[in-house]
Amino acid sequence: KRNYAITLLPGDGIGPEVTTVAKNVLDLVGSLEGIEFNFREMLLGGAALDVTGVPLPDETLSVAKQSDAILLGAIGGYKWDKNEKHLKPETGLLQLREGLKVFANLRPAIVFPQLMDASTLKREIVEGVDLMVVRELTGGIYFGKPRGFGTDENGEETGYNTEIYAAYEIDRIVRFAFEIARKRHGKLCSVDKANVLEASMLWRRRVIAIAQEYPDIELSHMYVDNASMQLVRYPKQFDTIVTNNIFGDILSDEAAMITGSIGMLPSASVGSSGPGLFEPIHGSAPDIAGQDKANPFATVLSAAMLLKYGLGEDKAAERIEKAVLDTLNRGFRTADIYSAGTKLVGCKQMGEEIMKSV
Amino acid sequence: KRNYAITLLPGDGIGPEVTTVAKNVLDLVGSLEGIEFNFREMLLGGAALDVTGVPLPDETLSVAKQSDAILLGAIGGYKWDKNEKHLKPETGLLQLREGLKVFANLRPAIVFPQLMDASTLKREIVEGVDLMVVRELTGGIYFGKPRGFGTDENGEETGYNTEIYAAYEIDRIVRFAFEIARKRHGKLCSVDKANVLEASMLWRRRVIAIAQEYPDIELSHMYVDNASMQLVRYPKQFDTIVTNNIFGDILSDEAAMITGSIGMLPSASVGSSGPGLFEPIHGSAPDIAGQDKANPFATVLSAAMLLKYGLGEDKAAERIEKAVLDTLNRGFRTADIYSAGTKLVGCKQMGEEIMKSV
Ligand SMILES: CC(C)[C@H](C(=O)O)[C@@H](O)C(=O)O
Ligand SMILES: CC(C)[C@H](C(=O)O)[C@@H](O)C(=O)O
Repeated sequence: KRNYAITLLPGDGIGPEVTTVAKNVLDLVGSLEGIEFNFREMLLGGAALDVTGVPLPDETLSVAKQSDAILLGAIGGYKWDKNEKHLKPETGLLQLREGLKVFANLRPAIVFPQLMDASTLKREIVEGVDLMVVRELTGGIYFGKPRGFGTDENGEETGYNTEIYAAYEIDRIVRFAFEIARKRHGKLCSVDKANVLEASMLWRRRVIAIAQEYPDIELSHMYVDNASMQLVRYPKQFDTIVTNNIFGDILSDEAAMITGSIGMLPSASVGSSGPGLFEPIHGSAPDIAGQDKANPFATVLSAAMLLKYGLGEDKAAERIEKAVLDTLNRGFRTADIYSAGTKLVGCKQMGEEIMKSV
Repeated sequence: KRNYAITLLPGDGIGPEVTTVAKNVLDLVGSLEGIEFNFREMLLGGAALDVTGVPLPDETLSVAKQSDAILLGAIGGYKWDKNEKHLKPETGLLQLREGLKVFANLRPAIVFPQLMDASTLKREIVEGVDLMVVRELTGGIYFGKPRGFGTDENGEETGYNTEIYAAYEIDRIVRFAFEIARKRHGKLCSVDKANVLEASMLWRRRVIAIAQEYPDIELSHMYVDNASMQLVRYPKQFDTIVTNNIFGDILSDEAAMITGSIGMLPSASVGSSGPGLFEPIHGSAPDIAGQDKANPFATVLSAAMLLKYGLGEDKAAERIEKAVLDTLNRGFRTADIYSAGTKLVGCKQMGEEIMKSV
């Protein structure tokens, strides 16, 4: 029997509800595939702040590092919104990404045929959209130094951050993206702002250099402002997108919303060694927390990404993906994706339905 | 007779074609409203590079500064794409904005009822969209120092830029945006990334401070990743948006594409004194340059913004706006906005039709 240690980070808001569902699905799939999961639940975000006073306790990071993969629910909430920076739930997440060195963030944006009408875009525009945003996750303006507050020559207060990339940071994420593109449809679009920013000029130069190693991949470059338009105009033109941390933050959310199924989309964050971090792209939805209304699909699909990209358990991953589609086909919907003629269920019952489909 | 000196910067690609139309429309409207325009055409962008070797000749900037307003076509093209940074057409535009100190960039995103079906979004989502993005234009990561290329402690090449805002820069753009919101529907949404970036934390703090002066305006804050989603999800929730230079670049283009009428949208860039800069938001479209296919509406509407925001000639501005709507109502369309049942015309003829409607 294969045995894996999984760190569970339920976090805040709806995080615990959706994580419970995903854990149960993993257990069931494991029992069918001869895999044993040892789950260990740790504190992160607001939940950690309330108990330990910091958003990422040392113990959470060290347990996570020693495990085989990490499944995260969601973090954040009104309660901690006014906290100082080092006491924000978000800071805990950023420290976790940095601590795990998970530089590659995979964010698929897929339109589920069953949910196509949930998109605000026309059917012919979104039908068949299946793109992957590969976002650099541990560099750029999120982590660049110097950063902080200062005073300019006129005594005016300033706030500043540094967008910085070193060649090796670009090379590794770009290679990663080329490999992903190769497993998908062989097209990679690199998004930058090389007509204005030096950090982007280096980015583009490195992309062009690395492309020599991937003559089979069709490479294009796009400015970020244009990319934000093209996602709306004709999302099907994209296969794999690679971009920096901040542009990836913006564009992957835009792409997710275009699918109309934000409650359905998972993400994976991986490094060159060590465990990966898997989480839904949606937030902690404090307004519906604890009401059994949350959509657990995105977290369940994050568990599938954990199996595939984290543990190499492709067969188990496919079982989960199929179960999700089957549950959708059987008409079950949480409130966020409900439409007339389908069956409205809560988070818990959805979990049970998914397990029936496994 | 009122007399104004207007600097014309036709620029590259379709720039000259659309600028000619707008100039003719201005002349006609001027003759009807008792306004005389003295146009002076100057070089900018690729056109300037080819003749003078720099993208913004000193003479262009000094003539522009001494004029009452500046009308710009578009800049850029494949020919200069590989130029070094200081020899890029884009650099000329950035130097012009900096030289004119036009810190406030107004980018309306309006859905024209006649063109609603051109949007990739569903009718019920885009019908009635009318929002204004107020983008900070002379600060932030576009101009922040230090910037450039370097080597890190491991001898790796780096590229870096600085996102920096001083309090006074934030205050003036935010006040400007509050004033715009007051003339519109009284709602202002400030977009930042204050959960991660210090520059955004200062931004949010200043917005909250300035808001004291505008108790009549309904203020909200949104993270940039969420804003990029909300524009797709429900664009009608927005009235006026204020944000920094780079986020404004991305979000205003996204908002424009959502309307489906990118060839229709103008922009205005103004400072606290001196002439304003008015230009369509679309690019130079080198693929259709010189073929009499360009859509001149966006430049003609930029001329209307020039009259309104640059010269305070509101009546003349309204004449142009009405003429544009009338021309659309009479069914004339350039190729980019053509649909079955309408009349396809070229750039020149569209100019004549607009003049008939004036
Ligand atoms: C919560 C926040 C710090 C985070 C980010 O900006 O990376 C989130 O938006 C995301 O995309 O995972
Ligand atoms: C051409 C480029 C430098 C410019 C910008 O990024 O500001 C353009 O995209 C714009 O939005 O006017």
